[in-house]
Amino acid sequence: MSNHPVTYQLEKKEKHTGARLGKITTPHGTFETPMFMPVGTLATVKTMAPEELEEMGAGIILSNTYHLWLRPGADIVEEAGGLHSFMNWDKGILTDSGGFQVFSLAHMRKIEEEGVHFRSHLDGSKLFLSPEKAINVQNKLGPDIMMSFDECPPFDESYDYTKKSVERTSRWAERGLKAHQNPDTQGLFGIVQGGGFEDLRKQSAKDLTSLDFAGYSIGGLSVGEPKEEMYRVLDFTTPLLPEDKPRYLMGVGTPDALIEGVMRGVDMFDCVLPTRIARNGTTMTSKGRLVVKNAAYAKDFRPLDENCNCYTCRNYTRAYIRHLIKSEETFGLRLTSYHNLYFLLDLMKKVRQAIREDNLLEFKESFFEEYGYNKPNAKNF
Amino acid sequence: MSNHPVTYQLEKKEKHTGARLGKITTPHGTFETPMFMPVGTLATVKTMAPEELEEMGAGIILSNTYHLWLRPGADIVEEAGGLHSFMNWDKGILTDSGGFQVFSLAHMRKIEEEGVHFRSHLDGSKLFLSPEKAINVQNKLGPDIMMSFDECPPFDESYDYTKKSVERTSRWAERGLKAHQNPDTQGLFGIVQGGGFEDLRKQSAKDLTSLDFAGYSIGGLSVGEPKEEMYRVLDFTTPLLPEDKPRYLMGVGTPDALIEGVMRGVDMFDCVLPTRIARNGTTMTSKGRLVVKNAAYAKDFRPLDENCNCYTCRNYTRAYIRHLIKSEETFGLRLTSYHNLYFLLDLMKKVRQAIREDNLLEFKESFFEEYGYNKPNAKNF
Repeated sequence: MSNHPVTYQLEKKEKHTGARLGKITTPHGTFETPMFMPVGTLATVKTMAPEELEEMGAGIILSNTYHLWLRPGADIVEEAGGLHSFMNWDKGILTDSGGFQVFSLAHMRKIEEEGVHFRSHLDGSKLFLSPEKAINVQNKLGPDIMMSFDECPPFDESYDYTKKSVERTSRWAERGLKAHQNPDTQGLFGIVQGGGFEDLRKQSAKDLTSLDFAGYSIGGLSVGEPKEEMYRVLDFTTPLLPEDKPRYLMGVGTPDALIEGVMRGVDMFDCVLPTRIARNGTTMTSKGRLVVKNAAYAKDFRPLDENCNCYTCRNYTRAYIRHLIKSEETFGLRLTSYHNLYFLLDLMKKVRQAIREDNLLEFKESFFEEYGYNKPNAKNF
Repeated sequence: MSNHPVTYQLEKKEKHTGARLGKITTPHGTFETPMFMPVGTLATVKTMAPEELEEMGAGIILSNTYHLWLRPGADIVEEAGGLHSFMNWDKGILTDSGGFQVFSLAHMRKIEEEGVHFRSHLDGSKLFLSPEKAINVQNKLGPDIMMSFDECPPFDESYDYTKKSVERTSRWAERGLKAHQNPDTQGLFGIVQGGGFEDLRKQSAKDLTSLDFAGYSIGGLSVGEPKEEMYRVLDFTTPLLPEDKPRYLMGVGTPDALIEGVMRGVDMFDCVLPTRIARNGTTMTSKGRLVVKNAAYAKDFRPLDENCNCYTCRNYTRAYIRHLIKSEETFGLRLTSYHNLYFLLDLMKKVRQAIREDNLLEFKESFFEEYGYNKPNAKNF
């Protein structure tokens, strides 16, 4: 096994759940886990400045390989000195493989052993992404953590297809590992697939853990399946992964799923949810979802969340934020984006504290009660 | 004469021009003049946070009475504790009278002695604004500096109409002064009109200076007339205004007109130009206009302005900003808005220094040369 530039240090396992407290060290600093990673698709976390992300406690963010490959192009980012320098962010950056976007955004895709032919969602131009190309692009982008190119089939895909896909993803992972040009400065993760099938997840994990990856991602979840299904898959998947490496559950960012994921041994999460709903005037608070653009808040001079200590909640009222969003003022989206990201980063901080104190189950119960997850038909995420 | 809550202190007159260096004190702090005021139409300077405005040296901003009256409504702002509290800005705020917007934005207006009937530009609803109403709204909004309700006819309006309009604006000014409920905490300015006619400007200034206003605005300029016309009018208008009160030239924000205005004795300026062009990917630099969204900057890793020390120029490249703007990312507009506002605030700082050193003419010459104003057919603002 080589010395990876991204390492995991286990600090403590929670007594009553599978949760683990730890630290991940990257060439751009160390962050505590479990951790939520804000998404900065195009080398910017929408509406936010890097200083604001640092202020709210983000130690790592995610950017999207597919999007950056199309705009501005990997060569420009490389010439700028890599993503960190390009976007003025000196903490951790993780990029995905582009695989998920090819399967969710691109048009007319055709999957072959060599890679995937498809058309750009921007201008329809013909593109080709292979395990080698995905690694090559990420080598140019220069994130601390890279992902292997994978196929992400729908959760309800057939067993036979999913099996073939898992086997191909394993072959792609091996090819990607060989293509990796910067193993000393960028950590490469393998992505475990297998849909809802326990034996396929087992096979995928076995294939990938036999290779020397810096960490392991769990893909193919949070793609529309019921949350119970996701938890069921996590129950048998995380135990398949090595204890001494980071585990990353891709695309998860609802408060309940973050906690449930942590309880099943996940260390890292990412999701566009907090920033996406923020731009629609919807916020997460300790009392559940609050749609601040609603007329009910026109004269409400309380902060978004009376229990929140973020920049937005310390300085601005629901009435002001509603006014800004109704008037299509950018600053309103900054304020809701800041709050939602802070809310999830702060939630993870509380989760880490609960692990430290071995009371994650009590914390979850109390959080769910306050947030409204226990109410029947609660309108939540 | 009463003790106004807004006062002007003359510090120095420049030796070779009409420029004056001074300080204006408001209930929310003192700022140096000449000063440029960023425009925050809807209680937000588009894309910017109050902390950023403070950081770049803004001591006062402008908000628009007409817009705030429509959204969110003066009562909500009043209930929030006034504009300062509503938008979390504890330095100076100036509001206009709504008059200019009624004449530039609203539909189907009908001017009577009592006031103006018109329809909202948002939903077509019938509205009525009078001198008393404009003051009443501003009393509720709570800015440090308020404007009298005025009529702002086109610059090329006939002499006869302009004369009638000036006389009405004087009567409106007197009514507004009487309607003012907070003379101890909000300073009210009169607005000198009169188009391009020297005797009408004289009449307007005489009428208004016979009333006890805290300061005087020069209206009806920068409304499409050639700059030379504006300078011609300023040449005979500012000498009509009292030396011991602030003089505010409304709606001016091109670098050349700011300097020319200062040279003619103006203390305060405002304009949407820096933030409006910023949102279109256009910036002001010491070398002139730079349209950063152009393809020429795709691989340009220099700052917007190599002579600028603002947050944007210290941390980001043209290539990154171009990428953000081409990708319609809000953060790009934050960066260009920050830079353009900083550029004008910094220009005024340099202008104040030049007044201090009695070399404003040399400063102007050198600035115009660098900026490109001396080039024939220069594409500038």
